[in-house]
Amino acid sequence: MAKLTDVAWNEFEALPLEAKRPYLANPDLPNTPYHTLFAQQFDRDLLERLAALANRIRFMAKSKEGALYLKSLLPHKRAMLYFSQPSSRTFLSHLAACQILGLTWGSVRDAATSSEFKGESREDSIRTFSSYFDMIIMRTPEKGLAEQMAWELSNSYRPIPIIQALLDIYTLLRSFETKGGLRNRTVTFCGDLLRGRTVRSLSYLLTNFENIRQVFVAPPELQVPEDVLAILRAKGVQYAISGNLREAVSLSDAVYMTRIQDEWDQSKGESARIDTHLFKFGAEELKLLPPDGIIMHPLPRRDEIATCCDRDPRAMYWRQMRNGMWIRSALIAMTFGFEKQIMCFGA
Amino acid sequence: MAKLTDVAWNEFEALPLEAKRPYLANPDLPNTPYHTLFAQQFDRDLLERLAALANRIRFMAKSKEGALYLKSLLPHKRAMLYFSQPSSRTFLSHLAACQILGLTWGSVRDAATSSEFKGESREDSIRTFSSYFDMIIMRTPEKGLAEQMAWELSNSYRPIPIIQALLDIYTLLRSFETKGGLRNRTVTFCGDLLRGRTVRSLSYLLTNFENIRQVFVAPPELQVPEDVLAILRAKGVQYAISGNLREAVSLSDAVYMTRIQDEWDQSKGESARIDTHLFKFGAEELKLLPPDGIIMHPLPRRDEIATCCDRDPRAMYWRQMRNGMWIRSALIAMTFGFEKQIMCFGA
Amino acid sequence: MAKLTDVAWNEFEALPLEAKRPYLANPDLPNTPYHTLFAQQFDRDLLERLAALANRIRFMAKSKEGALYLKSLLPHKRAMLYFSQPSSRTFLSHLAACQILGLTWGSVRDAATSSEFKGESREDSIRTFSSYFDMIIMRTPEKGLAEQMAWELSNSYRPIPIIQALLDIYTLLRSFETKGGLRNRTVTFCGDLLRGRTVRSLSYLLTNFENIRQVFVAPPELQVPEDVLAILRAKGVQYAISGNLREAVSLSDAVYMTRIQDEWDQSKGESARIDTHLFKFGAEELKLLPPDGIIMHPLPRRDEIATCCDRDPRAMYWRQMRNGMWIRSALIAMTFGFEKQIMCFGA
Repeated sequence: MAKLTDVAWNEFEALPLEAKRPYLANPDLPNTPYHTLFAQQFDRDLLERLAALANRIRFMAKSKEGALYLKSLLPHKRAMLYFSQPSSRTFLSHLAACQILGLTWGSVRDAATSSEFKGESREDSIRTFSSYFDMIIMRTPEKGLAEQMAWELSNSYRPIPIIQALLDIYTLLRSFETKGGLRNRTVTFCGDLLRGRTVRSLSYLLTNFENIRQVFVAPPELQVPEDVLAILRAKGVQYAISGNLREAVSLSDAVYMTRIQDEWDQSKGESARIDTHLFKFGAEELKLLPPDGIIMHPLPRRDEIATCCDRDPRAMYWRQMRNGMWIRSALIAMTFGFEKQIMCFGA
Repeated sequence: MAKLTDVAWNEFEALPLEAKRPYLANPDLPNTPYHTLFAQQFDRDLLERLAALANRIRFMAKSKEGALYLKSLLPHKRAMLYFSQPSSRTFLSHLAACQILGLTWGSVRDAATSSEFKGESREDSIRTFSSYFDMIIMRTPEKGLAEQMAWELSNSYRPIPIIQALLDIYTLLRSFETKGGLRNRTVTFCGDLLRGRTVRSLSYLLTNFENIRQVFVAPPELQVPEDVLAILRAKGVQYAISGNLREAVSLSDAVYMTRIQDEWDQSKGESARIDTHLFKFGAEELKLLPPDGIIMHPLPRRDEIATCCDRDPRAMYWRQMRNGMWIRSALIAMTFGFEKQIMCFGA
Repeated sequence: MAKLTDVAWNEFEALPLEAKRPYLANPDLPNTPYHTLFAQQFDRDLLERLAALANRIRFMAKSKEGALYLKSLLPHKRAMLYFSQPSSRTFLSHLAACQILGLTWGSVRDAATSSEFKGESREDSIRTFSSYFDMIIMRTPEKGLAEQMAWELSNSYRPIPIIQALLDIYTLLRSFETKGGLRNRTVTFCGDLLRGRTVRSLSYLLTNFENIRQVFVAPPELQVPEDVLAILRAKGVQYAISGNLREAVSLSDAVYMTRIQDEWDQSKGESARIDTHLFKFGAEELKLLPPDGIIMHPLPRRDEIATCCDRDPRAMYWRQMRNGMWIRSALIAMTFGFEKQIMCFGA
């Protein structure tokens, strides 16, 4: 089996994402990640097992007995939450995911309070901090940093896993669970499809499921990038590019709205010059959405979804947040080898 | 029974504080708050039950056995501490209150690290964060925000309680517990009676007890506002306005000193022009205070109380801090329905 | 026995460090500190007991059973981490040390978020915060603040211990444990020996062991201060001053590298004018180091140690970080009186 200790950093870095997958796997567990860094590590089997595990954790957490059992699994482990980007929501979600399993935690949230100012390299900082922990949960805008640290830690005297992935797909799996499952569906993405990470990863993950049609609705300047479409073509996935949200909504099982990510503007203000008024979900769109359809949004939102939609039972974006917590718990539990034990609880 | 789900936000917002009380109550428990937002929710029965619960918790926490029992009550619950104001002392007090009961916690302490900068509304932020928690402990200078969130969460698919109240009254109850209780007492408030939140709420809470005379000693510019006095008159409470601290001290059972809150100055520096030298507690005042009298202060202090008073047994302000922790624990325990279980411990 | 309650602050402050030791001891336990403030509190017996305790904790923490036993020792206690200096690594190390023993914790990491801005004295702040905790772990650049707080808290109605010491010596003890112990060794210090706290304290601690020769290699401007050498002379310890790192390395059992601490520069940039190129450890030095020798560094590093040394088995600086966590756990456990109980575990 491919191991991170068998490959030089330069060689590993140069591999395409799918080829990196075996290097990041846990050698002792079937189809289970050790480091979890990107969507391309997930196939359908793994996604469905994770969703099943998240379901189980979610149900167990409803009773004090179940919650205490979950907390008894990992009290001997400590997680470091390394966030070099301000992001309270992702931080709190991961934090709660750890707490559900009894993990204790420490955080590094602002590079300025670390000793990086003393001239230390980022790699040294993270490696030092990792001395005190058994897992790293990382969020950083620096491309490749998590991969590099995964490689370095796997080649150190005390390897520990790194997690940085996002899994909005659980909300889709959960929403269609009792309605025939996630197959033969149309999923519409709308908004800033060029710069949002969640769209890119969700689009990829959906290719694992049978006959999921993907529709991309955005102003031309923010349409989904060609490399995402190339993957869909390579996998034989049906897709459409559109500028008409209402039409797409009326044909969708799920509408995934996103925010204009103007913090990535290259010349300040370019986003403000784009006409986005056709790419908002309001009362009219709500009327067009099929009765079984769902509305998702990775949040934060601005005005892409009118607040008048918030109490519609098809608005899944609040539950989606909580689902993120459950799926993160599931991933952590699986990483530490507790999948079976949880699935067998009470059986 | 009045429920937050039965009333529109605008209607609720417009109610007088006392009329809001039933809406914030826990429908399943007699005279117990669900959301705890202001002093007007507390009557004497509730205050005395809370004080009894705090006493019990305080005694239990002295032994490892008792402490572990308390920690076994709420390990399956998570609290969010949402503090948009810098306030280490209040934060740590609430944190400790949670930890005593085994609650795990996460915090949002600085709006800048949340995604509010991405254009999200404050309400969306808090609602998202609440997805990961079972209770919100909130401190914010924005008037009405806690109320609004209480209403919104009660109307969401997953209601959770919000707590934001302060309860300095426990120190009074505790101090007079073995000396005939909190009745027939004179309580003197001194300092900035215009702008301190604690004076306003403590003055109100004292109206629940028999024959408590209130004396307000302050420079004219910082005297207690008329609406506080109007409440006292409406309830038939005896009070006096004074500029003479020494005289008041010699007649007081409790002296509640406060700091000049110049952070609320409208034109910078107006506080500095007020002559406050007569409104400080020092060695002379200590001599005048009756042997059974107590000195309180919500802290932080500047020079309102001379440090030479700190070791006098009547100086209660350090204990008052720790009392705040106990009463907060009691309130959280009560909110989650553990009042009876704790009161019966060891019985 | 000398007690902090029997001495005025001014008298205590004026004592030489070694004379302060008995005042900081735990009156109920033999040779055990209550407050731990400086290296001069440690003699050989105490250091060896601490190292043995750290070893035991380290081994216990390898199994879930042992880890849970450790976590069962102090769940009824709360630690405050008061860090007025930015220092993620020291913070996380102490945090982990607490978590290993089950302590819950709160932190104050930035004076700006405390209410010190409201004109409160530092002493009042810390004393207030201490109300909510059972121990203070402190790191602050203010000389004497920890001592003063130790004295104040010991003289308050609720004394709690303060810890601020650093103990890099554990790595030395551990490294030579199976090779005849820490005696008859040569330890070389290199880099900024003038301004680093760790050199000063480690040099002192080594005087507790038989026949440890100390070599100080630094540019003249950053050589070890005379008062450190005076202590060595007074204790009859052999030492040498040198400018030749390679020669020293070839004769050393341990090389303790340090960073140029230019944050202490008085006129900005004086450090940059010092020629430090002879005081770096690289591939050449690695060749000269004896096979049993070790390389240490308190981290963060800049370029004092080339990254090509990182995977050499003699490079102990990463383990040194983790050792810091274990020795801190040992110190906390000992402070709360759990030395015996841990040493007897499984016996």
